[in-house]
Amino acid sequence: ALQEDIGTGDITTLATVPADRTATAELLIKQNGVLSGMDVTEYIFQRVDPSLACSGFEAGGTAVSSGDLVGRIQGSARSLLTAERTALNFLQRLSGIATLTADYVAVVQGTSAHVVDTRKTGPGLRLLEKRAVIDGGGRNHRFGLSDGVLIKDNHLEAVGGDQRVTRAIGQARRTAPHTLKIEVEVGNLAELEEALNAGADIVMLDNMSTTDMATAVEVRQRLGSIALLEASGNVTLLRLREIAETGVDLISVGALTHSAPALDISLNLKLV
Amino acid sequence: ALQEDIGTGDITTLATVPADRTATAELLIKQNGVLSGMDVTEYIFQRVDPSLACSGFEAGGTAVSSGDLVGRIQGSARSLLTAERTALNFLQRLSGIATLTADYVAVVQGTSAHVVDTRKTGPGLRLLEKRAVIDGGGRNHRFGLSDGVLIKDNHLEAVGGDQRVTRAIGQARRTAPHTLKIEVEVGNLAELEEALNAGADIVMLDNMSTTDMATAVEVRQRLGSIALLEASGNVTLLRLREIAETGVDLISVGALTHSAPALDISLNLKLV
Amino acid sequence: ALQEDIGTGDITTLATVPADRTATAELLIKQNGVLSGMDVTEYIFQRVDPSLACSGFEAGGTAVSSGDLVGRIQGSARSLLTAERTALNFLQRLSGIATLTADYVAVVQGTSAHVVDTRKTGPGLRLLEKRAVIDGGGRNHRFGLSDGVLIKDNHLEAVGGDQRVTRAIGQARRTAPHTLKIEVEVGNLAELEEALNAGADIVMLDNMSTTDMATAVEVRQRLGSIALLEASGNVTLLRLREIAETGVDLISVGALTHSAPALDISLNLKLV
Amino acid sequence: ALQEDIGTGDITTLATVPADRTATAELLIKQNGVLSGMDVTEYIFQRVDPSLACSGFEAGGTAVSSGDLVGRIQGSARSLLTAERTALNFLQRLSGIATLTADYVAVVQGTSAHVVDTRKTGPGLRLLEKRAVIDGGGRNHRFGLSDGVLIKDNHLEAVGGDQRVTRAIGQARRTAPHTLKIEVEVGNLAELEEALNAGADIVMLDNMSTTDMATAVEVRQRLGSIALLEASGNVTLLRLREIAETGVDLISVGALTHSAPALDISLNLKLV
Amino acid sequence: ALQEDIGTGDITTLATVPADRTATAELLIKQNGVLSGMDVTEYIFQRVDPSLACSGFEAGGTAVSSGDLVGRIQGSARSLLTAERTALNFLQRLSGIATLTADYVAVVQGTSAHVVDTRKTGPGLRLLEKRAVIDGGGRNHRFGLSDGVLIKDNHLEAVGGDQRVTRAIGQARRTAPHTLKIEVEVGNLAELEEALNAGADIVMLDNMSTTDMATAVEVRQRLGSIALLEASGNVTLLRLREIAETGVDLISVGALTHSAPALDISLNLKLV
Amino acid sequence: ALQEDIGTGDITTLATVPADRTATAELLIKQNGVLSGMDVTEYIFQRVDPSLACSGFEAGGTAVSSGDLVGRIQGSARSLLTAERTALNFLQRLSGIATLTADYVAVVQGTSAHVVDTRKTGPGLRLLEKRAVIDGGGRNHRFGLSDGVLIKDNHLEAVGGDQRVTRAIGQARRTAPHTLKIEVEVGNLAELEEALNAGADIVMLDNMSTTDMATAVEVRQRLGSIALLEASGNVTLLRLREIAETGVDLISVGALTHSAPALDISLNLKLV
Repeated sequence: ALQEDIGTGDITTLATVPADRTATAELLIKQNGVLSGMDVTEYIFQRVDPSLACSGFEAGGTAVSSGDLVGRIQGSARSLLTAERTALNFLQRLSGIATLTADYVAVVQGTSAHVVDTRKTGPGLRLLEKRAVIDGGGRNHRFGLSDGVLIKDNHLEAVGGDQRVTRAIGQARRTAPHTLKIEVEVGNLAELEEALNAGADIVMLDNMSTTDMATAVEVRQRLGSIALLEASGNVTLLRLREIAETGVDLISVGALTHSAPALDISLNLKLV
Repeated sequence: ALQEDIGTGDITTLATVPADRTATAELLIKQNGVLSGMDVTEYIFQRVDPSLACSGFEAGGTAVSSGDLVGRIQGSARSLLTAERTALNFLQRLSGIATLTADYVAVVQGTSAHVVDTRKTGPGLRLLEKRAVIDGGGRNHRFGLSDGVLIKDNHLEAVGGDQRVTRAIGQARRTAPHTLKIEVEVGNLAELEEALNAGADIVMLDNMSTTDMATAVEVRQRLGSIALLEASGNVTLLRLREIAETGVDLISVGALTHSAPALDISLNLKLV
Repeated sequence: ALQEDIGTGDITTLATVPADRTATAELLIKQNGVLSGMDVTEYIFQRVDPSLACSGFEAGGTAVSSGDLVGRIQGSARSLLTAERTALNFLQRLSGIATLTADYVAVVQGTSAHVVDTRKTGPGLRLLEKRAVIDGGGRNHRFGLSDGVLIKDNHLEAVGGDQRVTRAIGQARRTAPHTLKIEVEVGNLAELEEALNAGADIVMLDNMSTTDMATAVEVRQRLGSIALLEASGNVTLLRLREIAETGVDLISVGALTHSAPALDISLNLKLV
Repeated sequence: ALQEDIGTGDITTLATVPADRTATAELLIKQNGVLSGMDVTEYIFQRVDPSLACSGFEAGGTAVSSGDLVGRIQGSARSLLTAERTALNFLQRLSGIATLTADYVAVVQGTSAHVVDTRKTGPGLRLLEKRAVIDGGGRNHRFGLSDGVLIKDNHLEAVGGDQRVTRAIGQARRTAPHTLKIEVEVGNLAELEEALNAGADIVMLDNMSTTDMATAVEVRQRLGSIALLEASGNVTLLRLREIAETGVDLISVGALTHSAPALDISLNLKLV
Repeated sequence: ALQEDIGTGDITTLATVPADRTATAELLIKQNGVLSGMDVTEYIFQRVDPSLACSGFEAGGTAVSSGDLVGRIQGSARSLLTAERTALNFLQRLSGIATLTADYVAVVQGTSAHVVDTRKTGPGLRLLEKRAVIDGGGRNHRFGLSDGVLIKDNHLEAVGGDQRVTRAIGQARRTAPHTLKIEVEVGNLAELEEALNAGADIVMLDNMSTTDMATAVEVRQRLGSIALLEASGNVTLLRLREIAETGVDLISVGALTHSAPALDISLNLKLV
Repeated sequence: ALQEDIGTGDITTLATVPADRTATAELLIKQNGVLSGMDVTEYIFQRVDPSLACSGFEAGGTAVSSGDLVGRIQGSARSLLTAERTALNFLQRLSGIATLTADYVAVVQGTSAHVVDTRKTGPGLRLLEKRAVIDGGGRNHRFGLSDGVLIKDNHLEAVGGDQRVTRAIGQARRTAPHTLKIEVEVGNLAELEEALNAGADIVMLDNMSTTDMATAVEVRQRLGSIALLEASGNVTLLRLREIAETGVDLISVGALTHSAPALDISLNLKLV
C-alpha cells in the first residue's frame, strides 16, 4: 500500500517541507463508530519512519464519537505527511467495517445468535478485515478454504445420487484434518434432517424463510443434535432481529466486509 | 488474494468433487450497474488453472442489468469452485466502484465538470480501483505521491510567511520533474488569486461554498488564467449538480472508492 | 531450492554438454517404499526447462519396489542434468516420509486408530510433507497454529485456577472461528474427565501409559462423549500396536516427518 | 517457516494466554549429540517478537548431553508459545545433522581423510544444513552447481570419443572461472590415471572397492600428482574406517543431510 | 546487490578474520568529482551489520577532491570487509553520474537551460541514478512511462492522418490524469507550430540543428505560448553551450546515466 | 526494471495507439562493437507481451558494425513501444561492456595473458555483466565472495605475525570447500615467494611495476610452482600489452564493468 502511494517519492512534501521540520498529528474522529486497525495505522507510520513516536492510540473495538482524538503521532513533518493517506486508508476502511458490524450486533443483542463474517473481503485484506469484524463485536467464520469444511450445493451435486448429504459428509470426514468441523449447506428441511443425522457439526440454512429457520431449530432439538445452525443469504438489517429470534446460532453477513462505507477520520497536523 | 483464500488447499472441494469432473460456470448479474474488473476476474480463473477456458467476457465499462450473463468459464469443476470467491471478490468490488462512479457522472452530464477519484482507495488495490473509476466514466486524479504535485494547507503552513502560496509553487516548480503540473489547495478567494498569479496549473477549491466556487470561476476568467479548477470536500450526490454548474473543471469524490458497496454478481455453476 | 542449487549457473554442464544435445532420463527406484512428491518432481523439471517432456509419472501413494521405473523425462541434456539433484532431493525426502508412514499405518491395521502427523516438519516444507503422510496412508493433524485449537499444558497453566480445563475450553470456544474443533491436552484421567464434561471435541492423552489410555476410552464411553481421543508422546513402532488396541482414535507421531530417512531413488540418464 | 506455521494467527494462545503474561523458557537437551542452528533458533524467537531476550545460547558445534540446558529465552508468554515449534524444528533438524556427522567424523579420526557433505540437502535449507555439517566436524563440498566443477559420467559421455576425460577437463578449464578447481568422477583406475595426467585438481572415486581405492592412492603417488582423492558411493558407517585407511583425502556422505534423524530437544516454559 | 555478492558467505573473511576483531574504515576520494549515494552506502553497511557505526558521511551533491575523506565506519572487521565492495559499487557509480552531470551543468551556466536526464538508466537503478543527476545539479525528466506523457514519432504515426499532432495531444488530454503535462516530440518547425497551437505543455525538439532550435524559440514567442522547449538527440559536451544559448529550457542527455564512468573512491581499513 | 519503467502504465501509448495496431521493429546497430544481452532483450519483450514474435536475434559475442540489423520483433505496437526502452537499456549496457572487453582482449592477443573481470559491477546486474565480459572474449573472476578465496592485504593484516601469508593460506585451506582455489594478494616479491611456497593456487600481483611482474614470473619458474599469476591495479589500455608480455596469466580490469559506455543501438519501429 505504501509502495503504490509513495512510488518514487512524495515530491510535494520534499519540495515544500524542510527535512528538519517536526510536527504533531492527531487522529480526529469525525463520525460516530467503532475503531479498528489502530495497530496497522501505527505500523504504517513507523514503517515510513521508525523515529515517529505514536502515543495514546486507542485499542481496536473502542466506541468513538465525532470529535474524539484517538491517537497522536510526533516527529518529522515530512514523514507524517507522506504516511498520512495510506495510514488513514487502512484505519477508515477497517473502522468502517467494525462500525457496520456493531450495528448488526446491536440488533441481535439478547438473542443467542452471533453475527459472523464471510469470505467476501477486500482482496489481500482478509486478515485485517476479519479482525475488524471482531472489533465490531462479530465473530469470524473460516478464514479461507483450508481452515474449515463447507459443503455447498455444488459440492453436493458433484457427489450426486441418493443420500448425497450423508455421503458428502462422510467423504469430508475421511479427508479433512480431524481438527476441523464439517459444515454443510442445506436448502430445505429434509436436507437439514439428513445432515443432522449424518453428524454434520454445523448446518447452513441457505436462503430459508424465517418460518423454516424456526422449524429447523425445532428439528435439531427433536433429533437431539448439538450441531450449530447458521442462517445465510438475504440477511438485511431489517430482517436481522426476526432471524435471530428463531434460535439459530449464527447469522453470516457478506455486507459487513463487502459493502461497509469508510468511517470519517482525519489527521490533524500541527507544525512545530 | 488467492493465497489468503486457498491457504493449504480447498479441502471441501478436494473431498467431494472428483479430479476429472468438469463444469460450466456463468457470471450472472443480479443488480443493475457497470462492469469493471472482468480482465482481473479472467486472470484469477486462469491463475488457479491455466486450462480453464473463458469466453464471452464483457468489457469493463459495460452497463449491465440484473439477469445478464457477462462471461462463461469452462473446465475443471474443482478449479472453478476454488477460484470462485476470489474472482467474485474482485469483480463485485470493482463493479461496485464503476457503478457508483456512473451515478455521479450521470449527474454532471451536460456540464463541463468531470468527476475524478482520489487516493482514498483500498490498500493494495489502487491501480484496479482507478481503472474502475474510468470504467464508470470518471477520470483519474494522480495515482500517488510521485506523479503529481498537490500542495495542501499543511505544505503551505510549512512554507509559511508572506506570499507562501507563491513561494510554495516556486519551490515545487524547481524540484519536481517538469513533466508534472503543479496543483495547490486554497481555502479562500484571496489564496486562489495568489495561486493563479503564481502560475498554478491546477487549483483545488477546498470545502468552498457553491457561491465561492462560482466566484472562483469568474476570478480565473478575469485573470486570463488557463488553470484548472477542482472542487473538493463535502461532495454529495445531492450537492453535485449545483457544484458542476459553477463551471469548475473537476470534482473529486473520495466516496467513489472508499465507500462503494459491492455490485451483486454470482457464479452459476453447472456440473457436466 | 533451484536457486540455491543452480546459483549463477551449472558450469560443469555448460562446459561439457552441447546446448543441442538431448537425452532421456528415467526415475529408478532402488529401495522398496511408497512414492510421494512426483508432481513437485515434475514441476522442478519443467521449471528448469518448460520444454522437458515428462511421461509415465506414477501417482503419489504408489507402492514401489527396487528396480521399478516410475517416470521418464525427455529433452535437453543440459536441462536434465541441471534439474536432477533438486528434483531428486524433493522426491527422495517426500517418498521417505510416505514410506515411513506406511510402516506405521501397517501396524495399526485392523484397529480403529489412525496414524496422524504433527507440526514437526522441515522448515518451509510442511505442505509437501503433510501430503507425503497422506500418500503413506496416514492422516493430517492441523497444518499450523491457525487451523486448529490445541490447548496444551502451558496454555492451561496460563489460564490457571480451579476448573482451568473447563475455562480454557470456554475461552477458546468464544474466540476461535466456530468452524474449528477444540482439542485439549491432558496428562491424567481427572483432567480427561473435566475436558470431556466441558465439551472438548478432541482430547490428547499426553505421554500416558497404555493402561491409562484404555481407561480413558472407558471414561469417554461412560460419559457418553463423542470426543476423539488422541495418543501422543513416546510412540515407537514397538509400542504402536498396543496403543492402537486401547481404542484411541488417533496416534500422532512426530518421527514421520522429523526423522524419516530418504528413499533411495536415482535418475538414469541416456544421451541420445 | 514461520508463515506456514502461524498462518492467520496462533488462535489457541490468543484465546488462553493474556497479552501481558511473561514467561521464561529453557532449551532442554534430551539426547546426547552436537548442537547446530542455535543462531537461527535465536533469530526465530526474535523475528516473532524482537522484545524476547535470549541468553546463554551455546554455540553451534558444542557437544551436549541429555539434561543440558543450552539457552534461555525470556519475555511475552504468547510470543514464546507461538515461536516454539518453528524454532525447535530448525534446531532439532540441524542438531540431528551435526550429531550424525560427528558420528562419522569420530570413525575416521587418526586418518588423513575428511568427511564431506553432498548436495543431497533439504530443499531451501542447504546453507543451514552445510553449516550443521561443519558444526559436526565435517567439511563442505561445493554449495551448488556454480561454485565447483564436478564432471560426472554423464558429462564424460556427452564429451565422448577418445581421451574424453582429458578433453572434458580442458573444456572446463577454459570455461569456468580460474578460481574454481576441476573435479572429475572416475569409475576405474584407467580413468583415474587419465584424469591425473590431465591435471584434474580432485578425482572422485565412484563406487570403487576399498582395494581399488588403495591402488588409486598409489597411482597418485607414482604420478607425482597433488590432486585430492574423494571416495563416494555406498559409504556406510561400517565401511567408513576401512575407506579412510586407504589414504583417500575426502569421503562424501549423502546420508549426513538426507537421512539424519532429528535430535530430541524441548522447550521448558515457566510462566512468571 | 548484497545477495549476489555475498552468496553463501564471505569465506575468505570468515577464514582469516576473527569474529571479535574490530576496525575503522574511511571512504577516501581518489578523483575530483561530486558525491552521490552516500545514504545508500550507509544503508549497505548497516544492512550487512546494524552495529556498524557510520559518521562524518558527507551529503550527496558535495564537491570533493582527491584525498578527501568523506565518511567513516567503525565496527566488526568482518562486516566491513564483507560490505566493502557492494557499498563502493553503489557509491562509485552514483558519484560518477553526479560528476558527469556537474560537468554538463557547468557548461550551461548563465543560460536559461537546464540539463535533464532520460530513462536510459541502469536496469533496477533508476531511482538512485535520477537522484545522482539531482546531486550533480541536473533536473529529472519523468521517472517512467506513467508519470509523464511524451508523444513520440511512433505515437504520431499511429494516430496518423491530418493534424495528427493536434489529435494526439487531444487524445492524451482526455485519457491521462489531468495532473500530468503533455509533451510531444517534433522533428521540424511546422510540427512545432502545430504542437504549440494544440496546447502542448512541452515540446521536444528532436535532433534539430542549433539554428532550428533558435527559430523554435522565436516561434514560441510569436505564438505567445508558455510551453517548455526541450532539446534532445546528439547532445555532446562540445555542442552543449551552443544549444543552451538558443534559449531552449531543457536539454536532455542520455549519457548522464548510460555512459558515466565510475568515480574512483576506495575504503581505507585499519584494524584495531 | 520493467516495473520501475512502466509503473502504473504507459499512458502515452494507451492514449495514442489502438489496442489492435501491430508493428514490426528492428534492432539497429549505430556504432561498431560486440553484442551482449540479446537473450535478456528477447526476454524483456516477451515478458511485456508473450505474443510478441522475436526472430533473427544474433547471438551474444557477435561483432557488429554500424547499420547492422541484429533482431526483429513483431506484434502489438503497444507492447513494442512499452518494452522498447527497458529492452534497449539492457542491450546497450551489456553490449557496451562486451565491446570494451573486446578492445582489451585485442591488445593481449598473442600473449598467454587473459583479461578477467572483477566484482565492480552494476548492483543487481552482476550475472549479466559477467556474461557480457565472456561475450567480449574476456574471462570471469569469481562471481562473489562465496565462490573463490581471495586473501587481500586486510585479511593478511588480520592474521598478523610472522609467516602471515603462509598461515592465512593454511586457515583458508582448512575452512573453505576443497573445490575452491586459494588466491592471495601480494605487494612485493618476498610475499610472492612465501605465497608460492605455501601452496597458493593463484597469486595476485597488486599494483606492481612491470619489471616486478616479470621477476615474479621468473620466481614462479624457479620455485617450480604451477600457481597462476594475476596482475591487478592501474591497468590501462596503454600499459596493457606491456603487462601481458611479462608472462602473467591473468590481468583483471575493473573498468570493463564499472566504466564501459553504452553501445549505441536503437529500435526501428514500423507500424503495419
